[in-house]
Amino acid sequence: MALPDFHDVELAAARLKGIARETPIRTSRQLDARSHATVFLKCENFQRVGAFKFRGAYNAVTQRPSSKSVVALSSGNHAQGIALACRLSGKEAHLVMPEPVNPIKRAAVQEYGGIVHVPPDPRDADSFSRDLVRELHGEWIEAFNDPDVIAGQGTAALELLGRVPDLDVLLGPIGGGGLLSGTCLAAHGLNPKIQVFACEPAGALDALYSVRENRIVSQEHPRTIAEGLRTSVGTLTLPILRDHLAGFFVVTEEEIVAAMRFVYERMKLVIEPAGAVAVAPLLRQEPALQGKRVGVIISGGNVDLSRYFDGLSGF
Amino acid sequence: MALPDFHDVELAAARLKGIARETPIRTSRQLDARSHATVFLKCENFQRVGAFKFRGAYNAVTQRPSSKSVVALSSGNHAQGIALACRLSGKEAHLVMPEPVNPIKRAAVQEYGGIVHVPPDPRDADSFSRDLVRELHGEWIEAFNDPDVIAGQGTAALELLGRVPDLDVLLGPIGGGGLLSGTCLAAHGLNPKIQVFACEPAGALDALYSVRENRIVSQEHPRTIAEGLRTSVGTLTLPILRDHLAGFFVVTEEEIVAAMRFVYERMKLVIEPAGAVAVAPLLRQEPALQGKRVGVIISGGNVDLSRYFDGLSGF
Repeated sequence: MALPDFHDVELAAARLKGIARETPIRTSRQLDARSHATVFLKCENFQRVGAFKFRGAYNAVTQRPSSKSVVALSSGNHAQGIALACRLSGKEAHLVMPEPVNPIKRAAVQEYGGIVHVPPDPRDADSFSRDLVRELHGEWIEAFNDPDVIAGQGTAALELLGRVPDLDVLLGPIGGGGLLSGTCLAAHGLNPKIQVFACEPAGALDALYSVRENRIVSQEHPRTIAEGLRTSVGTLTLPILRDHLAGFFVVTEEEIVAAMRFVYERMKLVIEPAGAVAVAPLLRQEPALQGKRVGVIISGGNVDLSRYFDGLSGF
Repeated sequence: MALPDFHDVELAAARLKGIARETPIRTSRQLDARSHATVFLKCENFQRVGAFKFRGAYNAVTQRPSSKSVVALSSGNHAQGIALACRLSGKEAHLVMPEPVNPIKRAAVQEYGGIVHVPPDPRDADSFSRDLVRELHGEWIEAFNDPDVIAGQGTAALELLGRVPDLDVLLGPIGGGGLLSGTCLAAHGLNPKIQVFACEPAGALDALYSVRENRIVSQEHPRTIAEGLRTSVGTLTLPILRDHLAGFFVVTEEEIVAAMRFVYERMKLVIEPAGAVAVAPLLRQEPALQGKRVGVIISGGNVDLSRYFDGLSGF
C-alpha cells in the first residue's frame, strides 16, 4: 500500500465535515503555569464515540464502496468508530472482540448497530477475522495500519492548526502510530517547522525502539494503564514516524495517573489514560517544551469509572 | 436592601467581561435522545475557580470600593470565588471556614491568596465572622443573599441566552437561591415566556417549602451528596424566586448520582453533584420538558475524586 500524504488528510477532512465533530480546544491558566508553556488541548474526548478513532474509521469506511460489510478486530475505540461509521454509511459492521470483552465496550458497539463476534480462542483472533472477511465478502479495516485510517486521524491536528496556526510543538500518545503518523502529515503539510513528539508509556516502550532501529520491534508484555497504547507500530506508520518525529517523551505510570488527575480536577475534563500520556511531559516541565506553544491531541475519554461511581449513592 | 433587577445583571456582565470566562455550551445527541428534549449545558464547571460562584463574588467585591478587606463565611466555592476576586482587585480576602475544613478546598483558597480563619467553635461561625468584619473594618459578602452576588450569578444565564436565544426552559440547582434568582432576572429580562425551574434534592427540600409558604423554611438536617445545596434561601432570593419560578423538580440521591455518571461517561465532563441535580429531571423524562429546548446551568465541577484516583497507580 502507498503511504498517505498531506493531500489525503485534506480529503479526509472534507469527508468528515459535518459528520465528525470539530472538537473544542481547551486552555488552562493552571496548566500553563505548571508547564511553563502555552498549551492547547484538542479535546477528542468530545469526538463521536468518545475518541479520535471515529475520524479514521469513518474515512476508511467511506473509501470502501465495493462491499456492504466491514470487518474489524478491536476491543476498544476502533470497534466503536467502525460501528458508528458503518451505521452512518448504511453498511454492516462486524467487530471481532477477543475475550476478555469489556461489557461496557461491547454494549457501546451494539448500541451503534455493530455485530459482535467473539473468537473461540483469543489467540486465533487474526485467522478468525480473515475467515469472517472471506465468508462475508467483507472489507477489512485495520485499526491503524491503513492509509485511510491514518489520513482520517490526521484531521484532528489539521483542525487544531486551523484554529491555532502558530504552534511550535505537537504532542500525542503513541500505540500503533495511527494518530501520530496522521498528525505528522497534517502538521508538516502546513508547516515543516512544527516539532511533533510521540509520548509513550515506559511500560509499553516499543515505538521508540522501532523508530530507532527502523524495524517493527513488537510489544510483547506491555504493562501500562493506557490500554490503547499496548500495540506495536505498523509497516505504514513506521516510515512516516521515522521521517517526521522530532523525538519521544517516555512517561511513567505514576506520571500518567497524576496527569489524568490534574486534567480531571483542574480542567474538569474526563480523559482516558492514553490522553494523559501526552499531558504528562508538560507537567514534568520537559525542557524542550519550556516557553513553547504546545498543542496536545487528547486521544479520548473512554475510561471505566465504575470504581468511582459504584457505591457512590449519595445519602 | 433593594432587590436587584435585570439592569443589575447587565451591569454585572459588563464588569465581568474579560475577567470571568464565557464558558462553553455543550450539547449531546445521547442526552437529547434520553431526555426527548433539545438540551444545552452551560458549563460553569469551566468557570474560574471551577464554579459559577466566581461571577457573583467578583461582581460584589468590585462594588465594595470603600474597604481593602473582604470577609466571607464559606467552606466551599464562594470562598474560592471571593479569594480570587480579591486577588484580581488588589484586596485582602479573609475566609471564615468552620471545621471540618476540607484540606483541598482550604489549599485552593490559599493558592488564590486568601487568608483562612477557622473559628474555635463551628457553632459560633457567624459571630466570629462579625467580629472579624469589625476588627478589620472589612466588607462582608454573603454567599447568596446579596444583590451584587445575585446579579453576578445571573450573567451565566445571560450568556447562555445570548448564544441560544430561543430556549423554552431553564434549569438550575437550588441551595440558597443565588444562582436561580439571578437566572430568573436574566431570563425574564430577555423573555418573560421562558420557564425557569428550580431543581432540588429530596434530602434538602427547603426551597420548595419556602416558596410555597412565602417564608424562609430553614434547612435543619439536609441529607444530600450535593453539598452546595444544603443551605436555606434568603430574604432577597425568596421574593425573586416566588415571583419568577415556574416550579420545582425534586430529585432523589440515586437520580443525582446517575445523572453525574451519565455526564461523566457520555459527555466527558467533570461536574459536581449540585450540577447533576439539574440534569436529573431530563434523564427521568419529566413531562414538562418533553420536546422543549432546555438550558441547564451546570453549577461547577469541584468534586473530590480521591476515591477514584487514590490507589489508581497504573501497573
